[in-house]
Amino acid sequence: MMSPEIQPAPGVQSFTALARATKADVDTALLRLATTQAERATALSPEVGVVVGALFELATRGGKRLRPALLAAAYLATGGEGGARTVLDAGVALEVLQAYLLIHDDWMDDDDVRRGGPSVHALLRERYADRATGDACAILAGDFAVGLALEVLASVPVAPSRLVAAVREFATMQTEVVSGQIVDVRGAAKTPAEVEAVHRLKTSSYTTRAPLAMGAILAGAPDAVTEGLRAIGDPMGVAFQLQDDLLGTFGDEAKTGKSARTDLRRGKRTALIAELESDRHAAQLLPRVLGVVDAPDEEVDALLRRMVDSGAKARVEARVTELLGQARGGIERLPLRAEGRALLLGAVDVLGGREV
Amino acid sequence: MMSPEIQPAPGVQSFTALARATKADVDTALLRLATTQAERATALSPEVGVVVGALFELATRGGKRLRPALLAAAYLATGGEGGARTVLDAGVALEVLQAYLLIHDDWMDDDDVRRGGPSVHALLRERYADRATGDACAILAGDFAVGLALEVLASVPVAPSRLVAAVREFATMQTEVVSGQIVDVRGAAKTPAEVEAVHRLKTSSYTTRAPLAMGAILAGAPDAVTEGLRAIGDPMGVAFQLQDDLLGTFGDEAKTGKSARTDLRRGKRTALIAELESDRHAAQLLPRVLGVVDAPDEEVDALLRRMVDSGAKARVEARVTELLGQARGGIERLPLRAEGRALLLGAVDVLGGREV
Repeated sequence: MMSPEIQPAPGVQSFTALARATKADVDTALLRLATTQAERATALSPEVGVVVGALFELATRGGKRLRPALLAAAYLATGGEGGARTVLDAGVALEVLQAYLLIHDDWMDDDDVRRGGPSVHALLRERYADRATGDACAILAGDFAVGLALEVLASVPVAPSRLVAAVREFATMQTEVVSGQIVDVRGAAKTPAEVEAVHRLKTSSYTTRAPLAMGAILAGAPDAVTEGLRAIGDPMGVAFQLQDDLLGTFGDEAKTGKSARTDLRRGKRTALIAELESDRHAAQLLPRVLGVVDAPDEEVDALLRRMVDSGAKARVEARVTELLGQARGGIERLPLRAEGRALLLGAVDVLGGREV
Repeated sequence: MMSPEIQPAPGVQSFTALARATKADVDTALLRLATTQAERATALSPEVGVVVGALFELATRGGKRLRPALLAAAYLATGGEGGARTVLDAGVALEVLQAYLLIHDDWMDDDDVRRGGPSVHALLRERYADRATGDACAILAGDFAVGLALEVLASVPVAPSRLVAAVREFATMQTEVVSGQIVDVRGAAKTPAEVEAVHRLKTSSYTTRAPLAMGAILAGAPDAVTEGLRAIGDPMGVAFQLQDDLLGTFGDEAKTGKSARTDLRRGKRTALIAELESDRHAAQLLPRVLGVVDAPDEEVDALLRRMVDSGAKARVEARVTELLGQARGGIERLPLRAEGRALLLGAVDVLGGREV
């Protein structure tokens, strides 16, 4: 049986234009939320105001708002009514949830810098001049955010049946991303396939799979279409993360704000490292660099060269291309009109070619 | 205008009987959830299985399941259909959420014992033989629980419009309880009124206010009734917490499992301490005991005696009685039939007279 083609919402634009408009809308909404929440928190106690303030200092600092844009794209492509702003709060919820994830992750990874400023635990340790209090209040800033994200999501003006389904997707996404973080914290992913499995849980879940599925659910798309978008989100998110690993290792440090040397010395297990595990030329080098905080520059640079010479870098790049192809193929198979399809293909291009 | 009386659901029992049946149902449901979640987690990675296992070791260890019983009581008293089991999963969600709160709180308070066993961070520190990894994975066990609680709540079989409203209540409850914990961690509550404000945020929110309101919302009660139950939950939860403070200080240690001496030496700021702040006879004693880990037994005991002699204990007891009276008065004013009213009054009796 042929599925009837889904008519995209009128006024569908290019993904680049949608992403730009969404970023502006999300930034404005986050600033407004920061104000109302700071007032509400401070009225309870100035102490709550400080913690909520730290949360929003992070949430409003930079961020490309790609997740809300993906959600909006899926909403419009699958016929969602009333324009992208109808589901703006679902996008805002994704950003507030991301703030929660970043705060807890940064504390676990002992990362003191995030989006070009202090991470929340670093900020609060300094504010209270006490490490334990700063850490506790950072965890609480994240805990506040996870509740707030749900409050915001639950106010999206669509039919309650759609909203309940979107909440369910949001909840499952949370358990998936936390599961990925557990595997990551334990350093349990060794092979390229295992690293990809973590990316699928930790990145695809809340970066692509759930945003796309939530957009379709909020638009009232048929289950098969939502399922199709979920399936597309999978390779799309893994490609996004592999690209991030490549840029973090070989990109322009001044531009990415990430240092490959620091990541390697901290023992960050990227796909590039996984590719080297079976390379006998790297067998001696790897344990002298990975997770060795005082590994000398020459050794680190030798490892970086080995990533190129061994073909590890080329293999990860080829895998990105392959995954993006899978995502594009999935979009081609969805029963969408040309405009909706073009919007989602544009999203794949932006996520695949992104500069961090 | 007279509100029409709300007909309670048929088969309404006494609160004690309902609480007993609810506990059995919740315990069974939690065991089933523990099994399915452990399987799902282990399939992702054995590492996830360990963390989810630790979460459920706590969630299934003891617990009187009073919150699900209150939710069920409000549901039945306000005419909810299909029996208390219809909203069982909402009660299970409250218990899973509580596990999240306990895990994060215990880590912040450095409490190694919970419900007669190791707290989750203590368990995982030992399991991994590493403090940082244990702490990170304990925070993640809590983070997993907050997502799972929402998944469970979002599956309650009622009309989506009711479920969305219940989710909103659940979300607001989360931001309130976290706000209370922030004030608590910062030790910012000094006066009896400030201590009560923390109890209202940290205890009433998820112990009484939201469970009662969610029960009414899921039953489809008029907004005024839900609001009335929320207002009753407020003094009810504060009374519950003050009672807990009294029992923790003057109760039988063998029975309560809590040591007043330990609490005082850790600097726990109960209403009893707040009452002593203005007592000039305690002015010298208080700083020598409160938060002084090696305070001698004689000094601690002198402070406990002063709580009695100064009338602090009697004032807190009187306040419990007053708050329980407010809760009963609120229930009398709700437009409920006699059976529904009796059920909720029974809940006040159990919460007010509880032995911890």
